[in-house]
Amino acid sequence: MFEARLTQGGLLKKLLDAVKDLVTDGNFDCSTTGFGLQAMDTSHVSLVSMMLRSDGFDHYRCDRNISMGMNLANMAKMLKCANDKDIVTMKAEDQGDTITFMFESENQERISDFELKLMDIDSEQLGIPDTEYTATVRMPSSEFQRICKDLASIGDTVLISVTKDGVKFSTSGDIGSANITIRQSTSADKPEDNTLIDMQEPVALTFALRYLNSFAKATPLSPTVTLSMSKELPVVVEYRISDIGHISFYLAPKIEDEEMDDNE
Amino acid sequence: MFEARLTQGGLLKKLLDAVKDLVTDGNFDCSTTGFGLQAMDTSHVSLVSMMLRSDGFDHYRCDRNISMGMNLANMAKMLKCANDKDIVTMKAEDQGDTITFMFESENQERISDFELKLMDIDSEQLGIPDTEYTATVRMPSSEFQRICKDLASIGDTVLISVTKDGVKFSTSGDIGSANITIRQSTSADKPEDNTLIDMQEPVALTFALRYLNSFAKATPLSPTVTLSMSKELPVVVEYRISDIGHISFYLAPKIEDEEMDDNE
Amino acid sequence: MFEARLTQGGLLKKLLDAVKDLVTDGNFDCSTTGFGLQAMDTSHVSLVSMMLRSDGFDHYRCDRNISMGMNLANMAKMLKCANDKDIVTMKAEDQGDTITFMFESENQERISDFELKLMDIDSEQLGIPDTEYTATVRMPSSEFQRICKDLASIGDTVLISVTKDGVKFSTSGDIGSANITIRQSTSADKPEDNTLIDMQEPVALTFALRYLNSFAKATPLSPTVTLSMSKELPVVVEYRISDIGHISFYLAPKIEDEEMDDNE
Repeated sequence: MFEARLTQGGLLKKLLDAVKDLVTDGNFDCSTTGFGLQAMDTSHVSLVSMMLRSDGFDHYRCDRNISMGMNLANMAKMLKCANDKDIVTMKAEDQGDTITFMFESENQERISDFELKLMDIDSEQLGIPDTEYTATVRMPSSEFQRICKDLASIGDTVLISVTKDGVKFSTSGDIGSANITIRQSTSADKPEDNTLIDMQEPVALTFALRYLNSFAKATPLSPTVTLSMSKELPVVVEYRISDIGHISFYLAPKIEDEEMDDNE
Repeated sequence: MFEARLTQGGLLKKLLDAVKDLVTDGNFDCSTTGFGLQAMDTSHVSLVSMMLRSDGFDHYRCDRNISMGMNLANMAKMLKCANDKDIVTMKAEDQGDTITFMFESENQERISDFELKLMDIDSEQLGIPDTEYTATVRMPSSEFQRICKDLASIGDTVLISVTKDGVKFSTSGDIGSANITIRQSTSADKPEDNTLIDMQEPVALTFALRYLNSFAKATPLSPTVTLSMSKELPVVVEYRISDIGHISFYLAPKIEDEEMDDNE
Repeated sequence: MFEARLTQGGLLKKLLDAVKDLVTDGNFDCSTTGFGLQAMDTSHVSLVSMMLRSDGFDHYRCDRNISMGMNLANMAKMLKCANDKDIVTMKAEDQGDTITFMFESENQERISDFELKLMDIDSEQLGIPDTEYTATVRMPSSEFQRICKDLASIGDTVLISVTKDGVKFSTSGDIGSANITIRQSTSADKPEDNTLIDMQEPVALTFALRYLNSFAKATPLSPTVTLSMSKELPVVVEYRISDIGHISFYLAPKIEDEEMDDNE
């Protein structure tokens, strides 16, 4: 039996909104560690990895490891029916073919249960190597979202260059080119408004803006986002979710030649 | 001659928004009693009955009963041109072929008159029998709207079950099933936030969500909605409009066999 | 070399939003006088004339007159990437084939430069004769926008009639007709909420609502709009932009016969 209760029910809704356009179907893995998902996007280019730790739930019980295949659009439809302040409980039998989402209003006057049919999904667990990154940028997530959206109106790819002074996002397209530079800062009134750079050596990598814009749908989950980069390695775009876990996206950089082709 | 003046002009706008998607053309009946409309929806499944009592107007004059055929979309277009705080006056000659909507701004600096062409519409007045209902539920109208919208993302029909403790809305569809239960409550700070149940015997009826969602467009007219139900009779979904009248919708329940067919 | 710096960067964004649907490509003229644009709309019916005076900029340098052809949709895309409070600087070389828009955030932590490719555009400078108008109406720009939008739901053209008491906007169409009268007023708390009429003789002219609705996209640039009219002459719809300039639209009236045809 699996049962997990979350007072801040709006969180699950935001989580699904962050991944449902990227991943169609996915296996959610429940264990004593927590409730997680790891999946390639539908075009098999990027990887999303999400984990809500068991200790972050108000109540959590998982008798044995189970993997539940769900259609994310349908799961999102059901979670959309919860109010942001509802308490959400997920329930599933070990051998069952459904998962139940229960929503309780604060005053207990409205109680809903939504039962979603599970599906069999083939998927291989992908090992994500633990990597030391040569450059890490922590910046306001809304700023990152805005930049990816703005640059996508000019070009298809973005070159992200990190130096010790700041991070520069550059693109070019048919109508012209653009550079947006964010300086390192430590002075903002709210710590989450700062941009922090941790760097062993400068790095400059090119990515498809389309995917970064998809990742940025996780913005409501966290005030900050962390970009971890090393030469020739996939970037990790990570949103830490206060007190309970994180959602991370992995995307391989474009190599020089590909980039040249795109701009022709 | 017909002339009716309403200080809260925004009311007519909301009224038209509530019925214009359900009814294309309708005969508005003016008498000394008031200004009313009774019409079947375009698919001849549901019935809408609206009445604004003459005593609810700031000024009301109706020399003889007249029936004015109007296209509701066009009427809504004209009423949309009124500001919410405008004073609205409707005027028509007994034998005329137009109705005039006059809008005056509070400070009298803006005066508009919109003249709508009337149409001949065949329609029979339908007698609505005065029925005693075995169960009546009065609940916040926004809650009812939300439930109908949420359940429509899962299934096509809703089973409404009333017991003395509460009212349950259930649906099922390809992706799963859902139940939303609202408990009877009398404790809310604002009386209109309570859910009140008046019941002789439990009743459970199934309705097409599509129509309930259309009815719910009347939500801005009233903070509460009343559902009146008896076995095998049409449900009445009524929005009372403060100090002046009401708009009611009638919809026959689906019988068991139909419902089974729908779910196959 | 051309360089112009504007603290209120949001202004340029609003300016482009006001003309980009009317004009596809245009030559911006830079001189010691200021930064201006004059262009026919794509259907060659109306004329837009815009001027930002050099003294309205925080810094302005123009070594020699240059004319820069730009696609307005692309220019708008780039300006959309500025925050409303950003300082915007435009830069161009005398013989260059690009213009650079630089955006600086208030705290200097975000600096962007967007480089737009220039284009060669054939256009003749049109002389706009300096005319004395027999009637001038200054009214709240939002009121004018609302009227043009409302009347367009009823008819295609509007008859604007100015008398010393007020200005009347009339239309008619298949579903009926409408008149909206705004009285002259001098009593509003905020002077820009007043409607002021300056008139030598009454004037009544008919215009295509489609174009007036396009002009009204300049509403965010100014709280008031001025309509200047004389018999058989194009109306001037002018939005004055505080401390720096104006944007004006010219539209010829429909002559009686055309109007009759439209209504048949």
